[in-house]
Amino acid sequence: MPRRGKQVTLKDIADSLGLSVNTISCALKNRNSIAPETVERIKEKAAELGYIPNSIASSMRTGYTKTIAIILGDIANAYFSIMVKELERNIRAEGYTAIILVTDEDAELENQAIQMAVSKNVDGIFLFPTCRTETGISLMRKVGLPFVLIGRRFKDPMMDYIVSDDVLGGYIATKYLLDKGHRNILHFAGPDCVSSAFERKLGYLKAVKKARLPYKDDWIVPCDITVGDESNALIQEVLSGRPEFRAIFTYNDIIAFRIIRIAREMGLVMPDIVGYDNIQSKIDLGFALPSVNIHKSKMAEQAAACLFSRIRRQGRKDKHMNEVVPVELIYG
Amino acid sequence: MPRRGKQVTLKDIADSLGLSVNTISCALKNRNSIAPETVERIKEKAAELGYIPNSIASSMRTGYTKTIAIILGDIANAYFSIMVKELERNIRAEGYTAIILVTDEDAELENQAIQMAVSKNVDGIFLFPTCRTETGISLMRKVGLPFVLIGRRFKDPMMDYIVSDDVLGGYIATKYLLDKGHRNILHFAGPDCVSSAFERKLGYLKAVKKARLPYKDDWIVPCDITVGDESNALIQEVLSGRPEFRAIFTYNDIIAFRIIRIAREMGLVMPDIVGYDNIQSKIDLGFALPSVNIHKSKMAEQAAACLFSRIRRQGRKDKHMNEVVPVELIYG
Repeated sequence: MPRRGKQVTLKDIADSLGLSVNTISCALKNRNSIAPETVERIKEKAAELGYIPNSIASSMRTGYTKTIAIILGDIANAYFSIMVKELERNIRAEGYTAIILVTDEDAELENQAIQMAVSKNVDGIFLFPTCRTETGISLMRKVGLPFVLIGRRFKDPMMDYIVSDDVLGGYIATKYLLDKGHRNILHFAGPDCVSSAFERKLGYLKAVKKARLPYKDDWIVPCDITVGDESNALIQEVLSGRPEFRAIFTYNDIIAFRIIRIAREMGLVMPDIVGYDNIQSKIDLGFALPSVNIHKSKMAEQAAACLFSRIRRQGRKDKHMNEVVPVELIYG
Repeated sequence: MPRRGKQVTLKDIADSLGLSVNTISCALKNRNSIAPETVERIKEKAAELGYIPNSIASSMRTGYTKTIAIILGDIANAYFSIMVKELERNIRAEGYTAIILVTDEDAELENQAIQMAVSKNVDGIFLFPTCRTETGISLMRKVGLPFVLIGRRFKDPMMDYIVSDDVLGGYIATKYLLDKGHRNILHFAGPDCVSSAFERKLGYLKAVKKARLPYKDDWIVPCDITVGDESNALIQEVLSGRPEFRAIFTYNDIIAFRIIRIAREMGLVMPDIVGYDNIQSKIDLGFALPSVNIHKSKMAEQAAACLFSRIRRQGRKDKHMNEVVPVELIYG
């Protein structure tokens, strides 16, 4: 196998000690057949030469690469970076490594990412789906690759997913603004195809209708959900053109921060805003934003437990995890 | 090679079409020896069955895994997550995938991460070094693995690195506070072993001494540089115990946010604070923090250009990149 010039092989160790490759191999695997003092001498020489076992060879033997792909929308969104931190910790604890693939919330990039993960022979995938395609899902099923969806789901319950209780989250966020006396409440929403966006909107509508507010369709403002400046003009227009709205519930914290920055830049009185994800639970923001808290560490732990159990029970069918995790409002 | 049950192989395609494995293999590699209509039929069948080329087999042939490791301190720190986003974009554009390994700024975890990357046969490494060990550096050199240091460097110039002009950054941050009339300026510093922390401190000291301030050693407060609550008590003590300090320069934005949150919680008048990294250039924060801007996209691009050039020119020696990128103050 061609490798960069200096990669140290079992043969290098064998040659430098005048032993056979087989002896070196057995010693490094702690097989009992080799005398302890020889094992020690071999391990010292291996360390001295900088020998690292080649995991590709091991993958060829076992069929496992000990690699998990994390496929997500936008690593610069603190929600995702916190989730990656939590997932990576769980992945590392299992002796695996994490591949990161970014979709920019784009269907085609998601399909490419899943194909890439399959071609890399990862042992499993954590997917934060764009919900804009099911091509990748079909592919993972076809090749029998274990996967767990995080944060979003499809209608089909025959796959493992863990999501927050988004309807409840949307409801309690809106209820908080109602309880502060607001009668005009905007919702900056994500696209309907994204389950978390659709369900948070359902929760918002439930609260708005229960309170018999004079709701109109234009209370819902469709908004870009990735980090970036694409929706600046829209937000400026809404903030300046509809001053009667003093309360806003946003699909995620990222949109809330964007609105706060723009309101500040425009010199407007800050509306009451409630975000979603409670990023500040893990990251200091320098200010306090009321936000719906999702249990990020717990979700990562459960997702990891599910995925690694699937990997270990390969081929065995068992019930799918359809987990909806409770949420609560954090007052910032 | 043992694989999960449903992985589609060349043999599966061959069997279902009544052709030889060799024919299938040549057709999928677009070799001219196969009739175009047969190639088309084979490709259709491959797509139908969900065939994905196995990159492990390809790695065994070529010696390249088309994988790059990014080794960093803390993915929940927005500075790192922005850098990962930028690096991943460059890595993907080259047809590579990114492995993420987290060090928690710990020497032992860094060594483990580099060993893991070597054992995974990555083709190159982007390392945000902890600067607490050179064991991993030695290993990468020993096995001839291309690597580029980002954001921090060692005294040894015989390796590729790209850093921001940290002395200048520390100087202009402090100068900004001096120009606002402050005569008592604290510096919340990272550990001296971290080159960026040491050099930012040098810049701070340069400005403080040039202005003939009544500097004492206790103006420098050593601080935890990762995301988390470890230094809360320290910050509380400094903020409440030393009210004469109305100006603070912090090693990074993360520490600045922590101070702002704590000052707010304690009900203190907010001091003038200058951070470092200018996270808000890529992420809305909802408030404006004066910060030293480092050119994150440009640094990621240059680091990627350097690493991929090393990978392509494997074995060929050429000059090392020792790049110090200018910085400027952003007033928030």
